[in-house]
Amino acid sequence: MQPWQWSAHAAATAVARGELRSETLVASCLERIALREPQLQAWAHLDAAAALDQARARDREPRRGPLHGIPIGVKDVIRTADHPTTFNSPIYAGHRPNEDAHAVAVLRASGAVILGKTQTLEFACGGAFPPTRNPWDLERTPGGSSSGSGAAVADGMVPLALGTQTGGSTIRPAAFCGVHGMKPTWGRIPWDGAKGYSPALDTVGLYGRSAADLRLMLQAYALAGGDDPPAPGLGQLRLGVVRTPHWAEAEPQAQAAFERTLALLRQRGVHLAELDWPDGCEAINRWQDEVMQDGGRYAFVPERLSHPALLHAEFKAKLDNHLGLTPQRMRDALDGIARCRMAFERSMEGLHGALGLSAPGVAPLGLHTQGMATFNRMWTALQVPCISLPALWSDAGLPMGLQLIGRRYDDALLLAVAETLDGVLVDPGRRPWN
Amino acid sequence: MQPWQWSAHAAATAVARGELRSETLVASCLERIALREPQLQAWAHLDAAAALDQARARDREPRRGPLHGIPIGVKDVIRTADHPTTFNSPIYAGHRPNEDAHAVAVLRASGAVILGKTQTLEFACGGAFPPTRNPWDLERTPGGSSSGSGAAVADGMVPLALGTQTGGSTIRPAAFCGVHGMKPTWGRIPWDGAKGYSPALDTVGLYGRSAADLRLMLQAYALAGGDDPPAPGLGQLRLGVVRTPHWAEAEPQAQAAFERTLALLRQRGVHLAELDWPDGCEAINRWQDEVMQDGGRYAFVPERLSHPALLHAEFKAKLDNHLGLTPQRMRDALDGIARCRMAFERSMEGLHGALGLSAPGVAPLGLHTQGMATFNRMWTALQVPCISLPALWSDAGLPMGLQLIGRRYDDALLLAVAETLDGVLVDPGRRPWN
Repeated sequence: MQPWQWSAHAAATAVARGELRSETLVASCLERIALREPQLQAWAHLDAAAALDQARARDREPRRGPLHGIPIGVKDVIRTADHPTTFNSPIYAGHRPNEDAHAVAVLRASGAVILGKTQTLEFACGGAFPPTRNPWDLERTPGGSSSGSGAAVADGMVPLALGTQTGGSTIRPAAFCGVHGMKPTWGRIPWDGAKGYSPALDTVGLYGRSAADLRLMLQAYALAGGDDPPAPGLGQLRLGVVRTPHWAEAEPQAQAAFERTLALLRQRGVHLAELDWPDGCEAINRWQDEVMQDGGRYAFVPERLSHPALLHAEFKAKLDNHLGLTPQRMRDALDGIARCRMAFERSMEGLHGALGLSAPGVAPLGLHTQGMATFNRMWTALQVPCISLPALWSDAGLPMGLQLIGRRYDDALLLAVAETLDGVLVDPGRRPWN
Repeated sequence: MQPWQWSAHAAATAVARGELRSETLVASCLERIALREPQLQAWAHLDAAAALDQARARDREPRRGPLHGIPIGVKDVIRTADHPTTFNSPIYAGHRPNEDAHAVAVLRASGAVILGKTQTLEFACGGAFPPTRNPWDLERTPGGSSSGSGAAVADGMVPLALGTQTGGSTIRPAAFCGVHGMKPTWGRIPWDGAKGYSPALDTVGLYGRSAADLRLMLQAYALAGGDDPPAPGLGQLRLGVVRTPHWAEAEPQAQAAFERTLALLRQRGVHLAELDWPDGCEAINRWQDEVMQDGGRYAFVPERLSHPALLHAEFKAKLDNHLGLTPQRMRDALDGIARCRMAFERSMEGLHGALGLSAPGVAPLGLHTQGMATFNRMWTALQVPCISLPALWSDAGLPMGLQLIGRRYDDALLLAVAETLDGVLVDPGRRPWN
């Protein structure tokens, strides 16, 4: 097995034991990128020499933290001090911030090598699509807006990456690309230094190839650590099943794979409880959209003032309040969401998490779509943690995501549940290169 | 009258008419600063030559927007591309970001001259106090954490300034310094580029010497504009009176001045309705503190990793979860706040706003306190817009603030009410220099 094929967890352990040099790992990832990037187009900016310099510096130093020597990709809406950050916007062509975003600074201080910037939908919001293709089928979208991060981790170009989610931008690419993706509880990884869209929704997202990979990052961010509750074994596990009001919009093959997974878990002793969608919460995806579009009324004011000719019409429509949102509609949307959050979490009492779909099915064909966020919008609005596991597959062998959903602040518990589920639901060898 | 004494609104009108050059205005402010800064110590960074260069560039250009040629001060926790940004932290000594925060970029693109950075409590959170003194009494605090912004605007050093509020950091200095301060609805001025503390609370704040001054900034941020509801006249005005569960903690002179103001408004035809504090909301200030302290568990992770020796023990205590917050306590605090938000706004139906105190009384003596946020924490938690008017005065002639509170998204309405109230409650000539 080549180093680029290693999971972040395996690589971090090997680096810590002195059995793998960061330089070797990074060089191997760069080789994989050189081979695959012409087809995949996952990267917005890459500087091989600088990445190898970082790796050699890590190799010379004492261990900084859990990510020592591990390369990561960073979605190009998150600022980095040593790479351009362009948001896939012509306004920011060549733009070079001189500071890391919070999410990047923590990983760097924990030993990570910032390999490069990954492709994104313009401002993670609209406008220009990224050129990135799905490693399982080059004719399909990898999902978005964290397109490059999802595709790069899936294809072995880099073991870990950062994304963001305002609608479904982290979990959906994880599902379509067959990797692990996590949207932590809103606000627990500070947003500072990422380009904002809608502040009540914007969340930093994480990608890896196992729950153990995600743990490395949660440890760095101080969201998982020594005094966490122990992981429940399969026989102790109590999970909800949450189909949401949108179940009928899922593809039959996704529904069928989901039911097979539930049957398998029941067989292995997992207690499953069907959760009714809370009363009065049917409109939650519309409320999420109103809150998201409202964010666009303010987020792009600087760009409209400074570069009106380079700002895509889609952002201008948002700035012009294309939904005609009023103060009362905003209060109704925000309060509706708050009521559903309380009702959903009440329904989760006594459970370790809940299972649902990460996406309506497989990645759609074409690069001018990113698929639907139907099974993501409500969870982003509720600000609860979600992990997508590559546990559901179509008959044609395309990945679909199983979504694990927790209560706010239960990130460490949810991660432990994901680690337990990985053992029975995820085949770590199922990769585009195998 | 010297240009430094002009309100922003008067100065912006004169600049727009070609009756005042930005260079003249900026030079006058710099003279005022040269005279008063040795006592007041409101500024963290100032570059007179660069400010004059900006002003001359504005004088040569077509009008950019509502703030053309007007100097502003920026709290030194908000990033600026052309000044250092140090957060009053030794970790960031000499730190120079190369980008403006959103809040600054909008003002600059609207024509403002970024005069300099104003003093702040370390990270607007704890640790080191700023050296700033209160222009009404040099032995007293100007309040904080936006200490320099409040003091500089009050003293005529600059007509407008930016602050931030996570507890009471914008409204309290406005009250203690006798200026207008506004905390808009949470999230409507994106936080991007300011140093985060607690994301559900962090709000950009605005300072001026009249409600009309604040309007210039709200226009730039697209929170007030052409299709706003017309300002209700005094006879149409319907206001709540909200004493909160903390009324007994207000100084008798503040209570008395508040009652006199209510009597005057009643006499002028304003309809006033006493609002009961919503049931179950007595603990809201504790919940606010829990949400705020929880933010500190994540906000300073990069600084602890990169510069542990330079991070004040107060931030380390927050990082170590000194309150012992649990996931359930966080959910209880956040949901408790959400319920109170709905109940408070229900009680406001049919009213244009509500009146309360901005602070428990006058600025306390000493520079190692910033006073109490007792009458601010709940409103920050509720994410509602607030404006402090310099309408209450102690017998000794020290300012106390009258706080005007609105429902979320009613920023433009609240501003219109403040403009109406300015006409009867605020003496624009009551300044430290008169």
